[in-house]
Amino acid sequence: MASKETKSRIIANALDLFNRFGSAGVSTNRIALESGISKGNLNYHYSKKSEIILDIFSDMRDEISLDWRDDHLHPNLDHMEFMFLRQLHMIWRYRFFYRELVGLLKEDPLLRKRFNELRTRRRESLKLFLTSLAQDGYMTLPREEDQIEHLMTSTWVLSENWINYVDTFHETLDEKDLQGGYNILMSIFRPYLQNGADTSYSHAA
Amino acid sequence: MASKETKSRIIANALDLFNRFGSAGVSTNRIALESGISKGNLNYHYSKKSEIILDIFSDMRDEISLDWRDDHLHPNLDHMEFMFLRQLHMIWRYRFFYRELVGLLKEDPLLRKRFNELRTRRRESLKLFLTSLAQDGYMTLPREEDQIEHLMTSTWVLSENWINYVDTFHETLDEKDLQGGYNILMSIFRPYLQNGADTSYSHAA
Repeated sequence: MASKETKSRIIANALDLFNRFGSAGVSTNRIALESGISKGNLNYHYSKKSEIILDIFSDMRDEISLDWRDDHLHPNLDHMEFMFLRQLHMIWRYRFFYRELVGLLKEDPLLRKRFNELRTRRRESLKLFLTSLAQDGYMTLPREEDQIEHLMTSTWVLSENWINYVDTFHETLDEKDLQGGYNILMSIFRPYLQNGADTSYSHAA
Repeated sequence: MASKETKSRIIANALDLFNRFGSAGVSTNRIALESGISKGNLNYHYSKKSEIILDIFSDMRDEISLDWRDDHLHPNLDHMEFMFLRQLHMIWRYRFFYRELVGLLKEDPLLRKRFNELRTRRRESLKLFLTSLAQDGYMTLPREEDQIEHLMTSTWVLSENWINYVDTFHETLDEKDLQGGYNILMSIFRPYLQNGADTSYSHAA
């Protein structure tokens, strides 16, 4: 098995185990076992668990950077719905990361730096999208610049924490719960959507 | 030292240590040491760390139940500001609890049950407050019942996670950061506030 293929397999298995048991509850030995490779082979690729976590994050970041860059070219409410659900699905797939976010970023300054760089870029993208949406008449942005910033910050806090919130109620949760997160996200934008848009949203929700 | 006094001292020291190092990073031995009591004496009061965490939560719950019950008797925006800041300060004081919430509730079904009972009661109180606010003309509630529910859910997700959010940016944070959380919470209510109220809010923010 080629080196790159082995790394992909390690990452995929580690992600699955971390999502199920939390990153602290999974040893590198167990990741090796699930990946069908020896401890030595795993050590050759990753000497520490934090390196695996950093590579999992890098995968997520690359996917976002590649696939999400053209959002502002589709400034309409259908695309906004698509964007919010895509974001929630992504967080669902990498849920251990968002569940343990504060601790993981405290433990690894490089991860913190990269995560915040991604967040900054994503925030600029969202602002560009909202501005395009306003220009095309789908929404009216709040007059005050700081209110636009508050609205974007709320979008972040809500989407990053929606799955954690649902998790505190149910023992198990599944992808259906993501729809609730979408409803919450849309509800904070709702007062700013234009009438036509508003109807479309009611229909979607 | 009386038994009750000893327990209070254990709880206060445990809370301080958990906030600084996380509950997983603090042994019961260390709590005994900081509390100036023997390991045996601590074991007499608490045989497991989870019992200490449950008592810390009970203290928080009792404080909320006793001091926060008359909010609906003061339906005005000054009191709303006071309520949001009080909530954020409370979460700040018990920040390890909200930082580790998903894991703590997974590990202890009794804690999960009690936490969600408290959340249900608090949610009813918030609804009563918002209804009173609307009756007195300070805000217009969304027409659709589910939008009111979404607004309340957003309030919860934002307030419970604000400190975690700030924590992912700074190495250190302090009570000043709570003001940012207040601004975010007010921003999602802002579109529903009446003009007079809106002016008062701009002044406060």
